[in-house]
Amino acid sequence: MARYDIAIIGSGPAGLEAALTAKNRNKSIIVFGSRNLSNKMQVIEHPITNYLGLKNVTGKQMAEIFLDQIQDAGIAITEKKVATVYAMGSYFTLQLSDADFIEADAVILAAGVIAGKPYPGESEFLGRGVSYCATCDAPLYKGKKVTVIGGSQAEENESDFLAEICSEVTYIPLYSGEISFTHDNIKVVREKPVEILGGTKATSLKTNQSEIASDCVFILREAQFPGQLVPGLETDGAAVKVDRMMKTNINGLFAAGDITGLPYQFTKSAGEGNVAALSAAAYLDQKKRNAQK
Amino acid sequence: MARYDIAIIGSGPAGLEAALTAKNRNKSIIVFGSRNLSNKMQVIEHPITNYLGLKNVTGKQMAEIFLDQIQDAGIAITEKKVATVYAMGSYFTLQLSDADFIEADAVILAAGVIAGKPYPGESEFLGRGVSYCATCDAPLYKGKKVTVIGGSQAEENESDFLAEICSEVTYIPLYSGEISFTHDNIKVVREKPVEILGGTKATSLKTNQSEIASDCVFILREAQFPGQLVPGLETDGAAVKVDRMMKTNINGLFAAGDITGLPYQFTKSAGEGNVAALSAAAYLDQKKRNAQK
Repeated sequence: MARYDIAIIGSGPAGLEAALTAKNRNKSIIVFGSRNLSNKMQVIEHPITNYLGLKNVTGKQMAEIFLDQIQDAGIAITEKKVATVYAMGSYFTLQLSDADFIEADAVILAAGVIAGKPYPGESEFLGRGVSYCATCDAPLYKGKKVTVIGGSQAEENESDFLAEICSEVTYIPLYSGEISFTHDNIKVVREKPVEILGGTKATSLKTNQSEIASDCVFILREAQFPGQLVPGLETDGAAVKVDRMMKTNINGLFAAGDITGLPYQFTKSAGEGNVAALSAAAYLDQKKRNAQK
Repeated sequence: MARYDIAIIGSGPAGLEAALTAKNRNKSIIVFGSRNLSNKMQVIEHPITNYLGLKNVTGKQMAEIFLDQIQDAGIAITEKKVATVYAMGSYFTLQLSDADFIEADAVILAAGVIAGKPYPGESEFLGRGVSYCATCDAPLYKGKKVTVIGGSQAEENESDFLAEICSEVTYIPLYSGEISFTHDNIKVVREKPVEILGGTKATSLKTNQSEIASDCVFILREAQFPGQLVPGLETDGAAVKVDRMMKTNINGLFAAGDITGLPYQFTKSAGEGNVAALSAAAYLDQKKRNAQK
């Protein structure tokens, strides 16, 4: 399994600055994100007037400048979604949404903030009829009836894949627009998910209009809520709890940027990414020294 | 007396980013610092490789880019040293080293970190035979014998001014090189200051070689230690204690950059400047709302 010193989740200013700084410290890194860096950045069309060093750039220009800089520094972005981060004690295992795994000695969460909150029942039934990864967990539901809550068009492919394995797929899009599938055992239901119901395991998804019997509810959001991404992570509402060194409650796990809470600002995010990377590097160096004792 | 919403002390990345962000929030500001921005920045001749947005710039180039950006934003730098910040309850009075005063509703400390620490006796006798401002306090020592500890050549002028008023000036330079005075009642002594001695008020400066009788010891450093700059400020060693919103223990007083402690990094400083300015703006807005009730 591929192993890295530091896995960085997110490609906005926090993740990129963390990557530059970790690279400076000679750490092997993998950065999960998108080549457009950050949707939030891409949509800003007015000049950004308070990012020190960049005078009146639009969000798109900022993204181009950042991308050029990290490419120059030899930093690549891995365009895969991280489904779950498991703290294994002295290292982390990251399950990716393509069912691949990687390992890292330290992890920096810089995935930004997402609106909303988990559905009632979601955390309770996770791993028992709730899944964040179609590719990973489809085999567990062969011949069964499943429901997909799809956060974006990208999840339509995932649902087609599920339809090959499961007997029946109910697809609930959280977006508007055309939807098309290659399999005919997928049914689109435009209702609002409300709660996941069950006993020892999930049995159905309750919506604002009906109750859909499901052996598994696949919740495929564009990004994970931090508490769902890392089981055991302490959060304060939507924000990951960190100290001034960007440490979370889990040893070796750091966070930076919007994911740590207000203010949502590019400069604040970059600054925190810098500190998180230095804290991660110090953590790794200490670990190495301890191992040599 | 001139009054501002926010006084920013320091013109490194923390102070400049705070200025850009405060300006964005329509606050009236004054920035104390130097037109070369930061000595620390000016001396970096290798490329800086981890400031997100600026690819491989030297410190001098970074300073030029920052200066151009703030000038464009209509931000001026006031080249005066702040001697003391007095927390007056609902506002602050800043005493400048030219004996001028300004007032501000909020203050952001972004003056960087200085090596060393206060001399024993320094805090104890402050205002009672220890002074940080020749111009301010000279009249108190008319016809008396004083000692100056001079941190840089700029303090030679200050000492000449003291020599006009005081009977005798002992000048202890903390730097090497030529020293010249226009007054002949100034004596240069190249010894190492050790402690300020006295009873109810200071009476002498003890050095590594002698004891110099002094009615006042003027300690003229290039920058103040934070605890000396702001009486009552909580510090942890050299660092100002702040929370994640960059608040200090004094209401309306914020800090950002190297002055808040490690890591000493440009990106970290800018990020903290951003947060400090937003916290100061929120503090001012809340104050206004309270006043309207």
